[in-house]
Order: sequence, then C-alpha cells, then structure tokens
Amino acid sequence: MTYVFGVDVGGTTIKTALVTDEGKVVYKYSFDTESHRGFEVMVDRLHEVMRQSCAECGIAPTEVAAMGVGLPAFLSRDRRIIREAVNLGWTDVPLQDFLERRFNIPVTLENDANVAALGESWLGAGRNADNVLCVTVGTGIGGGIVLKGEILRGVNGMAGELGHLMMQPDGPLCNCGQHGCLETLASATAMIRRAKEMQSLGKISWERDIRGAVDVFQLADAGDAGAAGVIAEAAGWLGKGLALAATVTNPETIVIGGGVSSAGAGYLKAVEETFKEYALNRISEGTNIVLAALGNDAGVIGAARVALQR
Amino acid sequence: MTYVFGVDVGGTTIKTALVTDEGKVVYKYSFDTESHRGFEVMVDRLHEVMRQSCAECGIAPTEVAAMGVGLPAFLSRDRRIIREAVNLGWTDVPLQDFLERRFNIPVTLENDANVAALGESWLGAGRNADNVLCVTVGTGIGGGIVLKGEILRGVNGMAGELGHLMMQPDGPLCNCGQHGCLETLASATAMIRRAKEMQSLGKISWERDIRGAVDVFQLADAGDAGAAGVIAEAAGWLGKGLALAATVTNPETIVIGGGVSSAGAGYLKAVEETFKEYALNRISEGTNIVLAALGNDAGVIGAARVALQR
Repeated sequence: MTYVFGVDVGGTTIKTALVTDEGKVVYKYSFDTESHRGFEVMVDRLHEVMRQSCAECGIAPTEVAAMGVGLPAFLSRDRRIIREAVNLGWTDVPLQDFLERRFNIPVTLENDANVAALGESWLGAGRNADNVLCVTVGTGIGGGIVLKGEILRGVNGMAGELGHLMMQPDGPLCNCGQHGCLETLASATAMIRRAKEMQSLGKISWERDIRGAVDVFQLADAGDAGAAGVIAEAAGWLGKGLALAATVTNPETIVIGGGVSSAGAGYLKAVEETFKEYALNRISEGTNIVLAALGNDAGVIGAARVALQR
Repeated sequence: MTYVFGVDVGGTTIKTALVTDEGKVVYKYSFDTESHRGFEVMVDRLHEVMRQSCAECGIAPTEVAAMGVGLPAFLSRDRRIIREAVNLGWTDVPLQDFLERRFNIPVTLENDANVAALGESWLGAGRNADNVLCVTVGTGIGGGIVLKGEILRGVNGMAGELGHLMMQPDGPLCNCGQHGCLETLASATAMIRRAKEMQSLGKISWERDIRGAVDVFQLADAGDAGAAGVIAEAAGWLGKGLALAATVTNPETIVIGGGVSSAGAGYLKAVEETFKEYALNRISEGTNIVLAALGNDAGVIGAARVALQR
C-alpha cells in the first residue's frame, strides 16, 4: 500500500489528508492557514501534521511516498515556485524545494482549482468521463479541465480560468481589473451583492442583513420572489459561461462545486436550461451537468492524485 | 519511405495529395466535388486519382500505406460514419467502410476544421507549440484544438467549434438556429453583409456590387473609412471570441486561417488588440496570434497526419 500526503491550502484553512494510492482518505486534519506568519511556518506545521497523522494511523512516515499540494496561486511554468498567491500575500516562493528538503519525498504543486477538478474527475462526480470540466462557484469562480485523467494546464497554467470569461464588457468591476467577468455575475459574492441591491430597493422583504449566499437560497426557498430572481440570474450567467466553455472543449461531464453546490436541484436546473439555450444541440446533448460529489475532500484527493501521477 | 493519401473534401472542390510520413507533399491534384452524384461516385473518382497520382510520381500504389480524409461533416463517435454533411447533402454514410473496401488500406475520417488545425500544428504556423488553437475564417468560422500533437475531439467530436461561440444573443440569425454566433459577426460572410448595409446607407462609396471579403479589404486599403470600419468590427468580434476560447485552453499559439488570412497585418493587429483587451494578461502574454502558413495544403497535410497517427 502506498500513502500520499494530500494538502489543500486555502486562504483561511489548510486541509490535509493521508490518502492511499486508490484514493481512500485514511486520516484528515485541518488547521488555520495564518499565511501572514510566512511560508516557513506553514512548512514546519505541515511536517508536524504529517508525522502526527501517521502516528494516529499506525503508519511509518517512510510509508508516505509523495506529497501533493493545491494552492490558491499562480505557479511558475515548471510548478516549482509560487509566482503569486494574492490571498496568501506570497510572491516568488520556491515552495517545492522547501517542502522536498523538509519532507525528503517528491512534492508536486498545483493550482487549487485544478486539484479539485482532478479529485472530482478521479473519484467524484466526473469519474468514468474522459473529458471533464469542473467549475467551483464560491467567493470567486475557479475552473479546471481534466482530459483522459490529466489536468489541462495550458501554456501558462491558466487553462480553465472560467471565472474570467468576459460575459458583459460593461458589467461589474472584477478583481482582475476587467469588467463583467463571469465571477462578477455568477459567484456567491455576486449573488450577495445583487440580493443586497434588491433588499435596498424593497424587492427582497427581509429585515436582517444578507450575509451569505445561503441566506439568499433560504429566502428563495421560503418563497421570496426577489431572492429567487437573484439566483435565477446568477444561474443563467453560469449556464451561459458553461455553454461558451463547452463550445471549446465539448465535455462529457460538467461538475459544479463550491458553496453553491449545496443549493440543490432548482439551481442546477436553471443552469442547465440556460446552458442548453446557449450551446449547440450537438454539444449540449453530449454533456451531463452534475453537482460535485466529494465536497471538501476534492482538493486533498486531487492533490494526492497529482502527486501519484508524477 | 511511407506515403499517405491525404484528402480534403470541400463543398465545391476535393483536394488530394500524396504525402510522405515527414509531411512532404509529393503530388497534388484537385477536382470538383459534385456531391449530388453521390458518395460512391466520389469513392470511384478518388481511387482513380490515387492511381494516377502514383503513376505520375513513379510510386507503386502498394507503397501508399494509409488514407486520411477531412470532411465538412459531423461524424459518428467512432468516426466511421458521416452522420450529417450539410454542404454535401449526405446523411448516415458509412464512408470509412466503403473507402477501406475499395482502397484496401486503413482509412481515417476526420472533421475538416480539425485536419486543417492538425496540419498547421504539425508543419505550419503552430509547429513547436504543444497547445494550439486554430480558427478558419471564411464563409463560416471553423476551429480546431491540437494538444501535444493530438486533436482534441471532445465527447461528440464538437470541440473547437468556435464559430458557434455565442457572442450576442440578440445578434444576426445563424445557420445553426441560434442568434449572434461568432460566425454571424466575424466571418467573411458577415463582413460582406455589413459592407452591403454600409453601402446602401451611402457610408461605403463604391459603385459596384460588393461580392467578396476581398472587395472590402481592397476598399479599406484604398482609404474607404466605411470598409475599414467593417473590417475593424469583424476583427474585434474575432478577438473577443478568441479571448473567450483562450480563457478555456490557454493556448501557446493561435493560428488564423481561411480566406481572411490573406488580409494581412492590419487585420491581425486589430484581432490581437481586442484579444489582449478581453483576455487576462497572464493568458494573453503567453499567446502568439499568427496567420496560417500552409494555405490550401493544410487540409491534405493534416489528413495525412491523422492517418499516420492511427
């Protein structure tokens, strides 16, 4: 049995898991990212966590053959160096070298949206499909493309950046500096912004502050037409964006993950309807749109997979 | 030396070539498609042409190891059957079987936009790049994606159908039944339509009928502001469409072929400018946009390549 240490670094939490070469998660542990303390502190902490995880499972640390790390970062072409991780505040960090020196095992870095896509393609909602498009809808929108079990990286590691499909040139300003990117129209953040606008216009009748997309979904479930409209609009933009992406790669399965994947059948149906309207029939009839299946484990499982592939 | 018979079937002309396994075209021959006479007539004619081509070159027909055929068609998933070829008027034709029985060599069918993309990626403007996006701008807009030398087909063979990226939901009606597809805004047909509109409004001062995109390009070269505007608008739409596609696959090289590729540097520059405006910097800085290099030979060379790959 080979074990791999899968790590999914987020802006606030780092998830880790010991994973077998068949993708079984045998031990999970999470801790706060605290990126302001620097990457050396994270490396130390990861080392300690891996040793403790092994001890908890009765595995010798030498049985861990490799390590894969998903990062909210733009990596160098050889994926050895973090070029920029805006949410972590790190620039030009040679993380692979640091981790390999500390752990003495091969370490593979990968973009976080790509590891989540790989996890879902390997063992989640995209298994059994050779051509998978995954989109993660949360604070922002990320994406990853997996072809015959391999991540499509593109020349700069930017393939699958669906959040920045430009949908509306005169739309809301995006963090990237463009206007009207898909994530300004279809992310959880976009839904909250639109719901607050509706609330201030009296079109959503709720007394309290809207704090999360969950509030918007609950209001819609309770029959609020304004909230339902906000969700339909965001789902519509996502369907249009997915239709554009599917016109390029003609995927067999589209997996929708992230916070909104808990929103349920109504949201998914609205996405599908717009998708069908905006994609050629020959494309849409070949595509299944499904919700992610691995939840929070997609990242650590995908990180383990990318390490196994190397 | 291995020879392959490369065939590129178009709506009006069929191009054929004897090609070496290194991609050298040793003999070319073209003839009228006459698809109304049926596919059996085409098969007979191709057989005769191959024998004559071999005779002209002093090659024994037995030295031709395989045959590849590019078709303006939607193929079955196993690519043995033409499901629909609108421009040829053919439906459900088991062409691979017919050709293999007649020629007694392995025959590979492929979509025409895909073989052109493969030809350009192998030996043309996309050589040396692992991730190539080709777009053919003519009567319509076709596209093909070549990753590490292999065509990305997608689940239904529809990957790279860039002509049907939906750019403007209230735009002109497309042959596919949708509105505002890229080819209704950026193809040669679209340029001619817009130029005629401008002419009827007196904004293009030319006495004669505008018959081809060449006329529009020549008027623009001669200083006609209306014609220049039509070209800039079409080039802008193409740049936007390519930016969307590049956000999905992050290509190293984008090759623009078809009739407009003879339009020259001004058109290419206009496409590039809009591309840069609508794609993330990290994507556009990794991408070269270039004009096709193989001209009319891209199809037969790509058809030969796809046969060699099988």
